[in-house]
Amino acid sequence: MTKHSATRPAGSAARLTPLAAGLPSSVPFTGPEELERRRNAPFAARLGANENGFGPSPRALEAMRASLDGIWQYGDPASHDLRNALARHWSCEVDNIVVGTGIDGLLADLVRLIIGPGDNIVTSAGAYPTFNYHVTGFGGTIHTVPYRDDSEDLPALIAKSGETGAKLVYFANPDNPMGSYLPGDRIAAALSDLPEGTLLILDEAYAELAPAEAALPLPIDDPRVIRMRTFSKAYGLAGARVGYALGAAGLIRAFDKVRNHFGMNRTAQAGALAALEDTAWLPHICDEIAASRQRIAGMATANGLTTLPSATNFVCMDLGADGARARAMVAALAEEGVFVRMPFVAPQDRCIRISCGPEDQMAQLEAALPRALARLDLSA
Amino acid sequence: MTKHSATRPAGSAARLTPLAAGLPSSVPFTGPEELERRRNAPFAARLGANENGFGPSPRALEAMRASLDGIWQYGDPASHDLRNALARHWSCEVDNIVVGTGIDGLLADLVRLIIGPGDNIVTSAGAYPTFNYHVTGFGGTIHTVPYRDDSEDLPALIAKSGETGAKLVYFANPDNPMGSYLPGDRIAAALSDLPEGTLLILDEAYAELAPAEAALPLPIDDPRVIRMRTFSKAYGLAGARVGYALGAAGLIRAFDKVRNHFGMNRTAQAGALAALEDTAWLPHICDEIAASRQRIAGMATANGLTTLPSATNFVCMDLGADGARARAMVAALAEEGVFVRMPFVAPQDRCIRISCGPEDQMAQLEAALPRALARLDLSA
Repeated sequence: MTKHSATRPAGSAARLTPLAAGLPSSVPFTGPEELERRRNAPFAARLGANENGFGPSPRALEAMRASLDGIWQYGDPASHDLRNALARHWSCEVDNIVVGTGIDGLLADLVRLIIGPGDNIVTSAGAYPTFNYHVTGFGGTIHTVPYRDDSEDLPALIAKSGETGAKLVYFANPDNPMGSYLPGDRIAAALSDLPEGTLLILDEAYAELAPAEAALPLPIDDPRVIRMRTFSKAYGLAGARVGYALGAAGLIRAFDKVRNHFGMNRTAQAGALAALEDTAWLPHICDEIAASRQRIAGMATANGLTTLPSATNFVCMDLGADGARARAMVAALAEEGVFVRMPFVAPQDRCIRISCGPEDQMAQLEAALPRALARLDLSA
Repeated sequence: MTKHSATRPAGSAARLTPLAAGLPSSVPFTGPEELERRRNAPFAARLGANENGFGPSPRALEAMRASLDGIWQYGDPASHDLRNALARHWSCEVDNIVVGTGIDGLLADLVRLIIGPGDNIVTSAGAYPTFNYHVTGFGGTIHTVPYRDDSEDLPALIAKSGETGAKLVYFANPDNPMGSYLPGDRIAAALSDLPEGTLLILDEAYAELAPAEAALPLPIDDPRVIRMRTFSKAYGLAGARVGYALGAAGLIRAFDKVRNHFGMNRTAQAGALAALEDTAWLPHICDEIAASRQRIAGMATANGLTTLPSATNFVCMDLGADGARARAMVAALAEEGVFVRMPFVAPQDRCIRISCGPEDQMAQLEAALPRALARLDLSA
């Protein structure tokens, strides 16, 4: 046994697994607060993280305020009340629902359950990077399929799953970052080609904001699909960190093997429950967001640009050029105090992605757009 | 490629990893809410989870209330403000601190970084089961050392680490469930025998409540140790889910490889920051808890029982018999409306473990104790 001095040895005692040692210390996204610190100024408009500036239901806020009196207590590790309300909402069993710290947290647990070194997944090139982060983190191999007409190409994703023997295939409906959606009956039809042993992750983070025909017309417990939902987008509770997965009871129960049982914030559970029960608020928010999408489209027109159709709370503005111009535009908007993001992959990276928001944020964007475009022309 | 019908196939598409398939769908602890649902009645006194019924600083409550206005925004994934305040508090660098969803969440990430199939850890038989849950969950092998005189036996833990080539050794100071503590200089001395390549997890969940001599007199960045701290106990914010780890910068940075970067609740970060900054509140809470420990000791005496010394916000009451009697007492107290827990392993399981709390909870306990003991004598 090697002896250390009692003061401070030079070497580290921590021996990472070979897998962990090989991972980069990377962050899937840099948060807007970090961008603000780098520029030494806050953003006047925060329109880059697809948050919902219209905010949550006042009843959710009131429920969270009231629950603070009990914040000395751990939250219910079973999320019993929220899961029961969700089971009523979805007309399914409580056993078909697991609650977690947002879709990110649920994706981590799902990937951990299914993916190890040598296992394959399929996703679209340019789709949600946090899923890829988890796959890499558990040693899986990522296979990608390009977007097709600014939409995820589900038949191609499913075909690639067969070619690679993928255990997971990721598909977001509506899609982020492009805002497009596929009618649910087309997803159901495509699933008839899903290989045995491939599970479809249907990321429905934005589904409450999509047309009714986007809904998947299959039973919640269809074992070929796990659906991911969140209170972060339409429900306006991104900072609370509440998501849930819907799926076959056997798969959902498997989360209990690995999840952080006491990881759910107590106030967040209360807020999500109240948000779900305030059924009048969601149509109101959908109206506000639809109007905001129109507002952003109008700004594009006023600046000689176009926008893509969106089934979400964000809009892709097409700058009609390439990734370099879009990156310059994101930077120019930041200099004007407006935080937006953009797709990662060509040709989608010709666009910038702008979150919807209330009028004060839209007014900031409206003022910043022509100024940012002028900056681009000056530097061109 | 096997074709499925478009309706509902019989088999599940999810293929768990061999490791995940072999894990039980178990819960490290059953929450008090679940126990209440099973008994169809709420507890009159919630004294089993070592929560802090005296509650958090009023400034923390006010900060959380105020932060709800921004709950539509994700929390800062870098926890910049909280980590900077902690760095000032500990006179260390921000790079020595990682914030997570309680010690449970941080233990999960740490185990994931270090433990894979075939790797060994050492802990005390009867120590914190959630650590073991994570180790099993990542395929590690658990080696145990018995308690000695109702304390964790650090020299034996370290010796066993050498014998097994353990990558992690777990030690709580003060200890849960027994409430004992080891002076920090004895920990520092014992570390001189720590094998090269073994990392000590020093779980200091209750450290704010312990005598000053419990503090470890070693630099925060000593690479042999990672310290785990929480806002759940002395700070009274269990439901917020905020913990942090202190250690060498290289190890702390490694958390960024695997952690759920956007997993921290925004309100919780604000509450923890305000709690930390209200430096007058913690001594007040320590006084309240010390008085409550005395109150519980007095109840034991009044019922012909004894208590063990405690450096925490809970007290072990010695029933002077065996695990069967303590289990019966836990059940009898539950029937009287008082939720407590007990150690898992003999001979510590002769005790029940009672959390400190405010006078209304203590009065419930005081009334319930003799009635519960009478139930035991009736059924004996």
